[in-house]
Amino acid sequence: MAPGTRIDAGIADEVKHLASRLYPEAPPEIAFHPQCFLTSGHFAGDDAARAAAFLDIANDPGFDALWFARGGYGSCRFAEDVLPRLTPAARDKAYLGYSDAGTLLAGLYKAGLPRLAHGPMPIDIQRSGGAAAVERALAYLIDGAAEALEPSVGSEGPAVAFNIIILGHVIGTALQPDLAGHVLMLEEVSEYMYRIDRDLCQITGNPEIRRAAGIRLGRCSDIPANDPDFVLTEEEVVRHWCGVSGIPYLGRADIGHDADNKVVPFGPPPTV
Amino acid sequence: MAPGTRIDAGIADEVKHLASRLYPEAPPEIAFHPQCFLTSGHFAGDDAARAAAFLDIANDPGFDALWFARGGYGSCRFAEDVLPRLTPAARDKAYLGYSDAGTLLAGLYKAGLPRLAHGPMPIDIQRSGGAAAVERALAYLIDGAAEALEPSVGSEGPAVAFNIIILGHVIGTALQPDLAGHVLMLEEVSEYMYRIDRDLCQITGNPEIRRAAGIRLGRCSDIPANDPDFVLTEEEVVRHWCGVSGIPYLGRADIGHDADNKVVPFGPPPTV
Repeated sequence: MAPGTRIDAGIADEVKHLASRLYPEAPPEIAFHPQCFLTSGHFAGDDAARAAAFLDIANDPGFDALWFARGGYGSCRFAEDVLPRLTPAARDKAYLGYSDAGTLLAGLYKAGLPRLAHGPMPIDIQRSGGAAAVERALAYLIDGAAEALEPSVGSEGPAVAFNIIILGHVIGTALQPDLAGHVLMLEEVSEYMYRIDRDLCQITGNPEIRRAAGIRLGRCSDIPANDPDFVLTEEEVVRHWCGVSGIPYLGRADIGHDADNKVVPFGPPPTV
Repeated sequence: MAPGTRIDAGIADEVKHLASRLYPEAPPEIAFHPQCFLTSGHFAGDDAARAAAFLDIANDPGFDALWFARGGYGSCRFAEDVLPRLTPAARDKAYLGYSDAGTLLAGLYKAGLPRLAHGPMPIDIQRSGGAAAVERALAYLIDGAAEALEPSVGSEGPAVAFNIIILGHVIGTALQPDLAGHVLMLEEVSEYMYRIDRDLCQITGNPEIRRAAGIRLGRCSDIPANDPDFVLTEEEVVRHWCGVSGIPYLGRADIGHDADNKVVPFGPPPTV
């Protein structure tokens, strides 16, 4: 399902064809909820339609995974509504996505769901080289493939990953999970550096977040030119706020809004 | 002092000349801290210079008011640092500004300072009709003029006012004040409607903010066109989140990033 912006039917076809080619003997059954193709102003259907589609899949024991189709904007408009309506079937399922879908991953992690991950979505197939991203997502969902994972996963304790602006907007809401002891991986796209700085101020200024084990910085791509120049790079910005907050800076993470985006399972290192 | 972006010396001259014309018999003494004219990348001097300038004025009993020169971005980079360094002289002083300076007003309100207000700044003199905004600020600072105030002030209990994005970034940090029972006036400029929506989701999703007495919506100006169209107007967006959160929507407020921006003293209605 698409929690924010809609996708074209062509994306669904491409992803299904790719999956059939990759797994010719036992192709995965991938169902795109009809909600993915709806349009309601900015959104892939109105809030009620997106919430219903989320619950249709999350609460259906016939699905092994809920794979978010695309980001955009819209998850926060129904996340608080759907969390109390999850049934036991919702716990027994993998969830994969990133960008705006991180709002739902945050709330689901707070709700204690065990199989959440930050990683590629069907929409990534339209990127240059994007087939590799979708292949990686399928390898993770179908086989739990270790090579799909962000390289530091498994060696540094529990982890999570978020888009910086999305995590910033979760701070202080009912969706904010307890990240004490976690490695927090962060990435960004298409935001001015001063906005990245401002969101990191808020994120690292939150007393709960300050209990994280450390921050790893993913890629910050397509950053518009700042006028006046912000001078600092994204790594200098993160190092600054880690210094102010006392959260250790652990280095870079192999995640971002791109075809190389690796999978970060939430919580303790997965046993694959 | 300028907590974010610098101003040109010409702004300072214009404001002083206007004040002399308005108050020919007893012109107010307006001192622009030299820090206002510094440049350090994006900022009016580095964090240490801006923090020092803030404390120079806040802690000097010779000044009746600290008038923020301009917004931009940068208050959050030193706000937490300066609050513990305020002396008793800082309490005995008015503070006036808006936009990015709202970050400091938030922290100062949390710290219990009694004379804070959201209203025009020296930089407003460069707007079309901006002399009226500066005249209004001076009327408030010098005479506590009732006609400078936002019209609902005094009739609905304690009030505060903030830029939406700025308040959004204060949520969940050490700067967030207790706004229980307050009328919360909000305004915005130059932000996509989906971002206004996203920040209102966060603001009204915060359990502490839900104890506010109500929200009044100021002007949202220069909103870039959304693609796809967001459909909802700013008032529909605020009504939506008031409905979700249970915070009463009280109507419009006469504030905004414009020459008509009225003064909103923080806290109980002023006795003028």
